[in-house]
Amino acid sequence: MLGERRVIDIILECLDRMPDMPVPFGDDVSAIDIGNNQLAVLKTDMLVGKTDVPPGMSLRQAARKAVVMNVSDLAAKGVNPTAALASIGIPRGTTEGDIQQIGRGLNAGAREYDAYVLGGDTNEASDLVISCSILGFCEKQYLIRRSGAKPGDIVAVTGLFGKTAAGLRILLGDLSAPPKMRKEFVDTVLAPQARLEEGLALAKTEAVTASIDSSDGLAWSLHEISKASNVGFMIDNPPIAPEVKGFAEMHNLEPLKLSLYGGEEYELVVTIKKQLWEKAERAVERCGGALIEIGQVTEEKSLLLKGEEGTIPIDARGWEHFGKP
Amino acid sequence: MLGERRVIDIILECLDRMPDMPVPFGDDVSAIDIGNNQLAVLKTDMLVGKTDVPPGMSLRQAARKAVVMNVSDLAAKGVNPTAALASIGIPRGTTEGDIQQIGRGLNAGAREYDAYVLGGDTNEASDLVISCSILGFCEKQYLIRRSGAKPGDIVAVTGLFGKTAAGLRILLGDLSAPPKMRKEFVDTVLAPQARLEEGLALAKTEAVTASIDSSDGLAWSLHEISKASNVGFMIDNPPIAPEVKGFAEMHNLEPLKLSLYGGEEYELVVTIKKQLWEKAERAVERCGGALIEIGQVTEEKSLLLKGEEGTIPIDARGWEHFGKP
Repeated sequence: MLGERRVIDIILECLDRMPDMPVPFGDDVSAIDIGNNQLAVLKTDMLVGKTDVPPGMSLRQAARKAVVMNVSDLAAKGVNPTAALASIGIPRGTTEGDIQQIGRGLNAGAREYDAYVLGGDTNEASDLVISCSILGFCEKQYLIRRSGAKPGDIVAVTGLFGKTAAGLRILLGDLSAPPKMRKEFVDTVLAPQARLEEGLALAKTEAVTASIDSSDGLAWSLHEISKASNVGFMIDNPPIAPEVKGFAEMHNLEPLKLSLYGGEEYELVVTIKKQLWEKAERAVERCGGALIEIGQVTEEKSLLLKGEEGTIPIDARGWEHFGKP
Repeated sequence: MLGERRVIDIILECLDRMPDMPVPFGDDVSAIDIGNNQLAVLKTDMLVGKTDVPPGMSLRQAARKAVVMNVSDLAAKGVNPTAALASIGIPRGTTEGDIQQIGRGLNAGAREYDAYVLGGDTNEASDLVISCSILGFCEKQYLIRRSGAKPGDIVAVTGLFGKTAAGLRILLGDLSAPPKMRKEFVDTVLAPQARLEEGLALAKTEAVTASIDSSDGLAWSLHEISKASNVGFMIDNPPIAPEVKGFAEMHNLEPLKLSLYGGEEYELVVTIKKQLWEKAERAVERCGGALIEIGQVTEEKSLLLKGEEGTIPIDARGWEHFGKP
């Protein structure tokens, strides 16, 4: 099986480049300059039943997630979503009730972020497929790319990590947890939230030098910023959710690994100009969130984690679809 | 199996309506008013291997078609495509060479119409799935809806019909044809052309009162305009390709049926203000095409065909994916 990243590279080699692309290939979104200092910003992300919908996730939740994962990419760039389209592949045996759940989930995913589903297409397919595309607009100067991180910037995230990795293992039946913990972890998988308000507020501060959403995992997100910005990271405060530490202890797992290599958290991973840190922090707090400092951008191009037992490298590996071998 | 139209109806019932939608649900495209007298126009259409890719169609052709079918919808509305996104579901066993074919096909489909593929997503799936979304822009007054046809308008099409229905049957191995005829018919299936230049030129004439592309077949397209505009049609010059008459004779088929109920022709079906007919005709001729008068819009809300043997109704049925039972 070809890896996802190899497939993308092959396709990119085949594509002509639009002149003056406001965002390079490989960033979270695509953009077009539409004049009047505005960008139209586009994103598409496809959810496939057998690899993206774990047992226990309803069709409504799956359809909602298909929209939210696109919103999250716009959020990371500081762009407000306006309209979504959804192409749906429907397996035989799907009932009217199932379709209604999909419709409601799509609508919920868009309306929670003040966007609308404006159109779509439907087809028979062997798997459930929900391919969502989203369009938003922003002023040119506010779009945050992956490529602006500078040595000395502060690395920060909008939440703690590891719950989705734990929740997914619970849903897959691999591991168990007490009811309250179970619910908390599982909910992060079934009902992900995009950090849209935080992303929009951060963009306005002009404090953010690079940003990405953490859908592929914290380690992978750091790796991507590192590559695009040509910098490295020294992480000294890994954002591990405290509940994940308890869960990891129960099952003899490493909480750090659950947090770094899990994925689908939909938090923002950002780099912030040091002198504007407090402005950025306040902007996120005004949205009811928190900006958590986890380390610094370094000139040395390596991803390192400084812990009690010394400094270790962070692998550049990310979230893989659970259906893959 | 739920019908495609029923699925769409159920989903539409679940969706909140964006206030002041420039184009209603159910038209070929969706649109957003972006100020400065401009609309952003969106379309998504999903191609699924087992229902949309007949034997004999290469992956390059399939990927190109996935883009072209979206371009065709924008063409019918008089909108220039700017950017395309493609989400691709890839079955196991797909090779690097296959992916390259897909990438080249996507690029060709966009570049032939002066658009660019700006982004996408890829996933493992059981079927080949290529979900393409396209974005274009137009001035508000030029967007042509399905809903403006008025009694007395002339009904016209940009080409002759029936070749794709014949070509598809040949590809499926149901019917045969002499080599030259075979190639001509099969090429219309494998390498469809969107009538973009014609659509843009027609929009500028302001002669067109309603427009749709004929991807679901001529009869279905007429039915859709009829429903949206609350009018009927009297067709007295059905646009049957002469070669299709020969093919039909060979196989004891009715050429009229191949032309009315085939589908995937990607011609434009338009209604034209009588007094501006010549202006519209000239506009299409300047693109190297032809505008063919096929009948009139009537107040009586029925779809009728006037032939040598009297007047018969045109069924409101369209193209169905060939994979469906």
